[in-house]
Amino acid sequence: MAGGFSLRIYNRTAEKAAGLVARGAKVAASPAETALAGGMVVSILADDRALLEVANDDFCKALGTGVHISMSTVSPVTSRTLAERHARFGGRFVAAPVFGRPEAAAAKKLWICTSGAAASKQAAKPVFDAIGQGVFDFGEEVGAANVVKLAGNFLLTAAIEAMAEASAMAEKNGVPRADLLNMLTTTIFNCPIYVNYGKGIMNAQFEPAGFPIPLILKDMHLVQKTASDARAPMPILNLLIDRYLTLLAKGLDRYDAVALALGAADDAGLQW
Amino acid sequence: MAGGFSLRIYNRTAEKAAGLVARGAKVAASPAETALAGGMVVSILADDRALLEVANDDFCKALGTGVHISMSTVSPVTSRTLAERHARFGGRFVAAPVFGRPEAAAAKKLWICTSGAAASKQAAKPVFDAIGQGVFDFGEEVGAANVVKLAGNFLLTAAIEAMAEASAMAEKNGVPRADLLNMLTTTIFNCPIYVNYGKGIMNAQFEPAGFPIPLILKDMHLVQKTASDARAPMPILNLLIDRYLTLLAKGLDRYDAVALALGAADDAGLQW
Repeated sequence: MAGGFSLRIYNRTAEKAAGLVARGAKVAASPAETALAGGMVVSILADDRALLEVANDDFCKALGTGVHISMSTVSPVTSRTLAERHARFGGRFVAAPVFGRPEAAAAKKLWICTSGAAASKQAAKPVFDAIGQGVFDFGEEVGAANVVKLAGNFLLTAAIEAMAEASAMAEKNGVPRADLLNMLTTTIFNCPIYVNYGKGIMNAQFEPAGFPIPLILKDMHLVQKTASDARAPMPILNLLIDRYLTLLAKGLDRYDAVALALGAADDAGLQW
Repeated sequence: MAGGFSLRIYNRTAEKAAGLVARGAKVAASPAETALAGGMVVSILADDRALLEVANDDFCKALGTGVHISMSTVSPVTSRTLAERHARFGGRFVAAPVFGRPEAAAAKKLWICTSGAAASKQAAKPVFDAIGQGVFDFGEEVGAANVVKLAGNFLLTAAIEAMAEASAMAEKNGVPRADLLNMLTTTIFNCPIYVNYGKGIMNAQFEPAGFPIPLILKDMHLVQKTASDARAPMPILNLLIDRYLTLLAKGLDRYDAVALALGAADDAGLQW
């Protein structure tokens, strides 16, 4: 395999594993069979429930003293639960959520946020080097990296909603959204989030969704729970959740966050 | 003068003109005396009222067939009013609001948004070249550039509020805001607005304000009026206005937008 690793993989949807199998990966019959005693397992799953189910006692037992690198976007609480579960079997857990799409991983362009015991993170370094362009460490408290990932996903979608509102306002005042966004995303907002999602808004490209609305809403609810448990009000977050609920209420489950622009346009009586 | 222009200047606060006077500018006794028949005048004022007062009939008459380059952040309605006023005296009006602080102007680093008649903008080009690193034109409708400037100021302050909320959430979950913002502003949000205001939040640098809260609130009310007149709801905008009102209610008039982070922290029970 590229990166020099020998892989045993598992995907709940078998055909999704085909690409890696063609390149030499072995398919495991269950999640637990991806774990070899003292080895290293990377997991990335859709939500907390799926991760907690996959990394069950059988899985932790099979991994033994190995390292579980958890790249899912989940709550810090889930990371703490899993760190304890692995510890019962002598194993180690590293939270390592990433920013970037699958293409970024293939190009070694992910940004990786890590937290957990220093020795465990050191053991995981070859994996990070194989897929990331940079690692940001947030210390030994295992949930810290998850907090950062949730904060980042919130900022990302807040930026899109702000562009959506500004675009609707401009367009209702005779300025095409493409002219507005082209100016702003090549000057004071010339960073990946604004450039990429700005392009999505300009082109009304709502699908295919790299990350569809139900999953975004799942993330926003995680942010809300994490903020709420810690007693941190986030008024923009609550507004975003309502925006996504409206998009789902209109049956737009297959769209991605660019659809916030559709929502703002619709609210302003604009036809797209 | 640098730029090769001969200047006659006026500032309501005389001492603010001292720097330019030392470099050869002549002081005019009134705004109207800055205008020479057939010449070019650049105005930049705090609000619509000040601009409408300065560019009165005397001023327009003195400028005659000249060009008034209006760089203030004002409503598109004010630009239309002034374009008509100048036209009555055979004069021309260009809306040319800018993104960037005074230091950026000195370094020829402003981003300039323009709208108005093509010939008028062409006449103003030497001025734009002397202070800007780029000009974005939004056509002949004279208020268009003002719409873009208002949209940009809204996006800017929305970004700060989002960082403020994310920082409070992270900090209440044990992640220092500096760690969070350092990661995000060097990766997916590595553009001037996030980098500069992110630094302000990390360093709790609320003053000296480049642009104090009462002026920001003035801009947000302009956005609100412009959006409202065009029937474009902007839920994040309304939330931002309340945030700024709370900061003013607490007597923080001298702070700049970084104080949104103070507001979010305070709401979350954090001590700074």
